[in-house]
Amino acid sequence: MKLTILGCYSATPRILTNPTAQVLETKGHMFLIDCGEGTQVQLRKHKVKFSRIKHIFISHLHGDHFFGLVGLISTFRLLTREADLHIYGPEGIKEVITLQMKLADSWTNYKLIFHELTSKKSELIFEDDKVEVHTIPLNHRVYTNGFLFKEKKGKRKLNIAAVEEANINVAYYRKLTQGFDVVNEDGITIKNEAVTRPGDKPKSYAFCSDTMYKEDIVPIIENTDVLYHESTFLDTQAHIALRTKHSTAKEAATIAKKANVGKLLLGHYSTRYKDLNVFKTEAREVFEAVELSEDGKVFEF
Amino acid sequence: MKLTILGCYSATPRILTNPTAQVLETKGHMFLIDCGEGTQVQLRKHKVKFSRIKHIFISHLHGDHFFGLVGLISTFRLLTREADLHIYGPEGIKEVITLQMKLADSWTNYKLIFHELTSKKSELIFEDDKVEVHTIPLNHRVYTNGFLFKEKKGKRKLNIAAVEEANINVAYYRKLTQGFDVVNEDGITIKNEAVTRPGDKPKSYAFCSDTMYKEDIVPIIENTDVLYHESTFLDTQAHIALRTKHSTAKEAATIAKKANVGKLLLGHYSTRYKDLNVFKTEAREVFEAVELSEDGKVFEF
Repeated sequence: MKLTILGCYSATPRILTNPTAQVLETKGHMFLIDCGEGTQVQLRKHKVKFSRIKHIFISHLHGDHFFGLVGLISTFRLLTREADLHIYGPEGIKEVITLQMKLADSWTNYKLIFHELTSKKSELIFEDDKVEVHTIPLNHRVYTNGFLFKEKKGKRKLNIAAVEEANINVAYYRKLTQGFDVVNEDGITIKNEAVTRPGDKPKSYAFCSDTMYKEDIVPIIENTDVLYHESTFLDTQAHIALRTKHSTAKEAATIAKKANVGKLLLGHYSTRYKDLNVFKTEAREVFEAVELSEDGKVFEF
Repeated sequence: MKLTILGCYSATPRILTNPTAQVLETKGHMFLIDCGEGTQVQLRKHKVKFSRIKHIFISHLHGDHFFGLVGLISTFRLLTREADLHIYGPEGIKEVITLQMKLADSWTNYKLIFHELTSKKSELIFEDDKVEVHTIPLNHRVYTNGFLFKEKKGKRKLNIAAVEEANINVAYYRKLTQGFDVVNEDGITIKNEAVTRPGDKPKSYAFCSDTMYKEDIVPIIENTDVLYHESTFLDTQAHIALRTKHSTAKEAATIAKKANVGKLLLGHYSTRYKDLNVFKTEAREVFEAVELSEDGKVFEF
């Protein structure tokens, strides 16, 4: 998985900071997660090919997470896109995008498919043979979902020398990668484990923003490789976090620890803080494997 | 008048070019004209104090002229603005902004006053004791208005030496600046022209974008000091201009010439052109006083 942070600040776009947007590349997909104002310019800056984006996931309808969406849809149209575009987001997202297209009399020449979310329970919203995407119900001032991206278990890899030695017909190789035992040319059953090894470990990524501290999400994101959890404030502003339904760095780290994730990425920083290292320091007191998101930063795992 | 070009390109925001937005400073006002995506960042870059913007004029509801508006309104709210904000634009603008605020459950704590425009004739939409703003009905794919900003005739200036010499009571000075004759301490009528001179020449600015060539606007913008007229294309792409209801540089210059304006500013360039000087060259064949708008450029007149 390759995660590119396009923007990781809260509230308003500024000269040097961008509101929330990320691109997750996995198994041939380019998933766009949230789309604050200016996201299309950030995509250009980081050379993400627009045509590769086919699925956009919007956590909630606050401006710093979705005001860039209508512009991106509109730009896709101007660039004569033809591929379908799937948009996953809270109920209402279709109405607001459609109204803007209607007022501009600018309908897309590609198919725009809205998947409006209303459930308060985690649900599977996308699946193909390689990846699954589940919602993570969060607790913010408006209806909000995080998203869990899970690669499926990969095929087993053939140990070519062992397979040839075992005198197995080539026609059975596919069954072997799927984990089955097979019968060889001599009529002997060959155990799968004897001639294959496990495929790549499937990776997972959880995006949780915006939300106040919510322990209910722990079972959903348990053992995730990388967790992005918002940390708008520090513990000294915990009262503001509580009132605005955001989290502190300490709370993000507590969730990461309880869920036993591989790595925690902090983000959605309030612009009141000049030095981001204070977030890392605070989180590390609770959970060791912490990194700071920063606009333009790329994480591969 | 001081005009700051925040963005002067058509279609989509890019790394180095911005969609339409301008700030016109006149008689204490900061009028924002159009508001493409990213305008709030451009305002920050050019150090325009957000609180000074009290009137926003939106020509039409295509994205490159108004997708930045909802974000700006939202940022004003986050910065705890208190002053009223007046928005002038096509019918529907209130619905789309209100819907976005409703979905975000983020209502402004300041008063947002929409002035929805529907007339196909030029009308006076703003007036105080120093400035008037009139619409300029344009011809584009959707309902569109340009805007004419006219300073009112300034007060006459006193020739202090002459006034004192004429033995006029101080109480009459105000009447003199208003252009009236007055009676002096000796009962003699003093002609206004004898003791005053004309005030500053009132300036005017016309913004016309987007539009195809439309000669009907000439009487409205006649003798305007500065005219910004879109020139999305060159004459070689006149057929595309016609189909998309835009203008060529040559057409913009023809309007400028017929309206006898002081200066023509070109803008709203299609991003297909790498060198903007070709626009100036083409326009100058018709009308001499041409300048190119460029993002960040300031014109004082």
